[in-house]
Amino acid sequence: MPSSDAAKPVVILQASPHPVSRIFTPEALHALHERYTVVDLEGAGPGTADEVLDQALPEAFAVVGQPDLPAERLARAPKLRAVLNIEGNFYPNVDYQACFDRGIHVLGCGPAYAQAVAEHALGLALDLARGISREDRAFREGRENYVATGNADAVLLRNADVGFLGFGNLGRALRTVLTGFAPTIRVYDPWLPAAVLREHGVLPTGLAETVARSTFLFVLATVTEESRHLLDAELLATVPQGARLVLVSRAPVVDYDALLAGVAAGRFLAGIDVWPEEPVPADHSVRALEGTVLSAHRAGGIPAAFLSIGDMVLDDLDLIARGLPPVRMQAAARELVGRYRNRPVTG
Amino acid sequence: MPSSDAAKPVVILQASPHPVSRIFTPEALHALHERYTVVDLEGAGPGTADEVLDQALPEAFAVVGQPDLPAERLARAPKLRAVLNIEGNFYPNVDYQACFDRGIHVLGCGPAYAQAVAEHALGLALDLARGISREDRAFREGRENYVATGNADAVLLRNADVGFLGFGNLGRALRTVLTGFAPTIRVYDPWLPAAVLREHGVLPTGLAETVARSTFLFVLATVTEESRHLLDAELLATVPQGARLVLVSRAPVVDYDALLAGVAAGRFLAGIDVWPEEPVPADHSVRALEGTVLSAHRAGGIPAAFLSIGDMVLDDLDLIARGLPPVRMQAAARELVGRYRNRPVTG
Amino acid sequence: MPSSDAAKPVVILQASPHPVSRIFTPEALHALHERYTVVDLEGAGPGTADEVLDQALPEAFAVVGQPDLPAERLARAPKLRAVLNIEGNFYPNVDYQACFDRGIHVLGCGPAYAQAVAEHALGLALDLARGISREDRAFREGRENYVATGNADAVLLRNADVGFLGFGNLGRALRTVLTGFAPTIRVYDPWLPAAVLREHGVLPTGLAETVARSTFLFVLATVTEESRHLLDAELLATVPQGARLVLVSRAPVVDYDALLAGVAAGRFLAGIDVWPEEPVPADHSVRALEGTVLSAHRAGGIPAAFLSIGDMVLDDLDLIARGLPPVRMQAAARELVGRYRNRPVTG
Amino acid sequence: MPSSDAAKPVVILQASPHPVSRIFTPEALHALHERYTVVDLEGAGPGTADEVLDQALPEAFAVVGQPDLPAERLARAPKLRAVLNIEGNFYPNVDYQACFDRGIHVLGCGPAYAQAVAEHALGLALDLARGISREDRAFREGRENYVATGNADAVLLRNADVGFLGFGNLGRALRTVLTGFAPTIRVYDPWLPAAVLREHGVLPTGLAETVARSTFLFVLATVTEESRHLLDAELLATVPQGARLVLVSRAPVVDYDALLAGVAAGRFLAGIDVWPEEPVPADHSVRALEGTVLSAHRAGGIPAAFLSIGDMVLDDLDLIARGLPPVRMQAAARELVGRYRNRPVTG
Repeated sequence: MPSSDAAKPVVILQASPHPVSRIFTPEALHALHERYTVVDLEGAGPGTADEVLDQALPEAFAVVGQPDLPAERLARAPKLRAVLNIEGNFYPNVDYQACFDRGIHVLGCGPAYAQAVAEHALGLALDLARGISREDRAFREGRENYVATGNADAVLLRNADVGFLGFGNLGRALRTVLTGFAPTIRVYDPWLPAAVLREHGVLPTGLAETVARSTFLFVLATVTEESRHLLDAELLATVPQGARLVLVSRAPVVDYDALLAGVAAGRFLAGIDVWPEEPVPADHSVRALEGTVLSAHRAGGIPAAFLSIGDMVLDDLDLIARGLPPVRMQAAARELVGRYRNRPVTG
Repeated sequence: MPSSDAAKPVVILQASPHPVSRIFTPEALHALHERYTVVDLEGAGPGTADEVLDQALPEAFAVVGQPDLPAERLARAPKLRAVLNIEGNFYPNVDYQACFDRGIHVLGCGPAYAQAVAEHALGLALDLARGISREDRAFREGRENYVATGNADAVLLRNADVGFLGFGNLGRALRTVLTGFAPTIRVYDPWLPAAVLREHGVLPTGLAETVARSTFLFVLATVTEESRHLLDAELLATVPQGARLVLVSRAPVVDYDALLAGVAAGRFLAGIDVWPEEPVPADHSVRALEGTVLSAHRAGGIPAAFLSIGDMVLDDLDLIARGLPPVRMQAAARELVGRYRNRPVTG
Repeated sequence: MPSSDAAKPVVILQASPHPVSRIFTPEALHALHERYTVVDLEGAGPGTADEVLDQALPEAFAVVGQPDLPAERLARAPKLRAVLNIEGNFYPNVDYQACFDRGIHVLGCGPAYAQAVAEHALGLALDLARGISREDRAFREGRENYVATGNADAVLLRNADVGFLGFGNLGRALRTVLTGFAPTIRVYDPWLPAAVLREHGVLPTGLAETVARSTFLFVLATVTEESRHLLDAELLATVPQGARLVLVSRAPVVDYDALLAGVAAGRFLAGIDVWPEEPVPADHSVRALEGTVLSAHRAGGIPAAFLSIGDMVLDDLDLIARGLPPVRMQAAARELVGRYRNRPVTG
Repeated sequence: MPSSDAAKPVVILQASPHPVSRIFTPEALHALHERYTVVDLEGAGPGTADEVLDQALPEAFAVVGQPDLPAERLARAPKLRAVLNIEGNFYPNVDYQACFDRGIHVLGCGPAYAQAVAEHALGLALDLARGISREDRAFREGRENYVATGNADAVLLRNADVGFLGFGNLGRALRTVLTGFAPTIRVYDPWLPAAVLREHGVLPTGLAETVARSTFLFVLATVTEESRHLLDAELLATVPQGARLVLVSRAPVVDYDALLAGVAAGRFLAGIDVWPEEPVPADHSVRALEGTVLSAHRAGGIPAAFLSIGDMVLDDLDLIARGLPPVRMQAAARELVGRYRNRPVTG
């Protein structure tokens, strides 16, 4: 290590499951190396990552990624100021409580995906509203319907009754892209006081009413013990006839058997991006189900979203190095970091 | 005719090509009959419409629809105050100049369709941005790609460079639904001064620059002699690599051979709702063309749009009857009414 | 007249009551002269304006301003395409019905002032909400109140109940500048169907309810026979205690005696820009009345508003010369042009 | 203490400098007492507050207010989960680092005042733009100017060049209320990465350019060592001729001598709400200075702002009691809590 680097803060990097180039633009990666002494655990050679990590910890200023960081390892990193998670999920291989006790910033990259998910969710909703993919398929098969003929069930989103289950990053981004449609948005989010929702221009509403009054219903909740099968068979039975459901957060929030049965029965239409089992079994009946738009967990993971992670990491590292609080990534809440039940996502 | 009706203004109605129930809700139709003596040319019995029309003209307050109204017929309607067109196109079977000379309101229903077209156009754009219908088809064929794998060319609409060719009703409605995406919108519209475009928050731009700088390019222009093949092969060659084109106004504005060749060559993607020949020939190669979303002239003609026509007609009739100017339908411009070259649309 | 000018359309100009330089920037004036043969009636020399006008009429393409144009004069102007009013009021010295019968565009410059009036109206409302001018006066007299002490009656505009009487150019501009306050806006406008108001995101409401439910009430109506003393003593008695009234359109719409009595009684506060008699008599009691912000008909007539008139005139002349409809100035409605009862305004 | 209260969490309350009724509505106070065992230090009787505090600490769940809490006192409060500051300033009588080390939430009520300050700042800006208080004074003295006469220097805010120094709570609230004016907003905030500013639709800009290009310049920065006299004489000399300056955050950020000299010289106009010395000396020359709007630290402290504090406290206490993170008050940043140099404000 050249002596001039000695003054640079040490950043430990473990980009997996991403290749580094997915989350850092060349410019961002260059800046990272210019400003910090980067210890890349994946460049460390097979089997040596743990060793390299242990060696780097005493001088480490920040960890980018999610290598195993139990309490004893954290204890050997007295200068550690931040752990920057780049996956969107917090796994229990890091002792987050130890971080909080030390005042080490624990940061997540959830905001990186929110815009991409919101745009995809709106795309699914408009598809369901207007039959875009259904009629594209018909056109390719030579059975398209012109003008009004294929539009019997088409609806407008403008001024529509819209429901959100959950109002975190996804809900806020989706509310923003819906602005120009002037919808009435009812939101059920048990973690947020009514005043916060009103401040965002949405109506705080109970779960039952949100479901029963929504022509467009977006499932945007994360998974916790409490939210598993939040949208169960009983609640799905109260969805208005002809409603459009869009699922883009996490599959366990919905009872899929009931969901698909409702679509099959012609009760509502559904745009589905997340699945209880991924990949979906080859012979799954949903593949032939009309009334759906099928999407393979593609809402968030687009190039622009991934590359924004690197920019966020770089901006927040710089702020922390300057003695300022980070502002781009999302501070994990001590109360919540252990409650999420999201599976790892690969692909 | 009961004597009590004598005091009601006489409205001549010819709803075709629509059935009356497509454009009037039951409530609106009831209100129409309650407030006016309605002479329905289609209820007149076969072959008698002309006769009924001629008989009603001397007392006619307004004509809703587009029966033949040459100068000599208009001359026999001294009380006529308005001609309310419900088709979206002005055909030469009405002597519009005679109407303008008489101060008879000539009103069009273009605004009725604008919101539906704008939402469909955005739906097509988001589909092209994210591959929604492409991946739905793949999913149904058991070859879906999860997470990042199928997202290599996915792009965000947020903060994107967007171009509009034309800024009439469609452009304004589309600008509004795009609000939440905070795009940069360049507009080419030779009928509008720059100040009007700036007032709407869009950038007045020349044709070449609008095309060459747009990641999303929306063709929203109506057809006139001047706009035929406005987007020709030469201009299409300057569309940025990977751009998304959305065509929802009128087919003659674009050179379709060049358009489809560009898509086939992988230069850009296209969402197409209007076609030079409708129905599209069964064996047309576009049916098998990747890089497109195919739509059968479905953008505007949805139930909510049709039914808004009846409400607009009713509101404006009432204003005119009260001695006030109409405000919901669009006053036809003396300068433009003869310049449009739109074909009749049926369906 | 130089021969090269022969091909230019002839524009007759009578800028009064404005000096030409108030409504045309040097650039706009230069462009006007470059594109048109301008016959300036005021440059014509004393007593000769009528003669010059009569001489120019046979070739006149447009009249900018409001010289006497009775039917017989109009009849001598066969090429006349437009009369562009630059005062904001239509006086009976022009035979407008003859213009309408001929299809001559009759254009008003009302939109030029709307933004200025809207900003002034909001300024008055915020002043009343927070006591800005009242406390500025106190400060200058050495009796200012710090922090909470002077704020007992201060209110927020955010999420407030706002009422508009009238929703023409002023109402639309004011609604736009209020966007960021997310108010509930109730509008009474008997000339507009409910659907138009809803389309603008405001609530169509009856007169009594609009008045009785508004914490901020803006009087934005123009004067007609019907709107004289629209806000009379009886209605003023229903204004909520502590409300803020802002008057920026036309004085005759309000009963001023009742208005000032209400302020004097501490029932509401008022920001007043228009007066039944201007100048207001030197000894008028309003000059000493607390609970008011006094403004001397200053809301609309600012340099930026005046200069936009010249730009609007130029843009619309150019469109008309190209065979296109004007879009910047406001087409006068045949039904309304004779109904306004505004006095001339000088200053 | 009734046994039934034993199960309620203990909340220590010291509302001063506010009376309790200023920050809690009767409903909020009732709810507070219903859900928590409230130990009100001010109800404790003279001289006994410390004693009561010490006695309550071992069971304390939260402290609302800012009693002396050095490390040794905090050490005697093992169940303490949150310190909720209700003054807007963090004083050194609390050992915040000890709180952070313990994972005790340290919350501030800055957001409570932001909307009130933003509306006042806009009111001052519109007053300066249009001369509202100046002309109100003239009117009361019988020397008002009608229509254009008094408007020579009036300007529009629409589409104006606006500059913000600082983009915390105040800047965000002000940006929102400015939405309808479609301004270009340049922001200098050295604590925020450019991406954050862009995300809010403002332009990240250097200090010099922000000052030199702003027709409306808002000083919204808090005071730290670095920001003292941020706007100094040299920088003030670059303010555009005729600009409007609005000071609503903290006086030390500006060199007041240079500021007032600039106004006196006719270089710019200023709306001033905060002062280096409060009360301002009775004989201060600013009291007679034209070109100013004078305000006595009244921007934030209005009833609606104060009462929102109680609601925020109640909402966040409830979230914390439910094991969720607080969301309404502002989490103090470990890095910043010691850097602010705001004086106590009384009134």
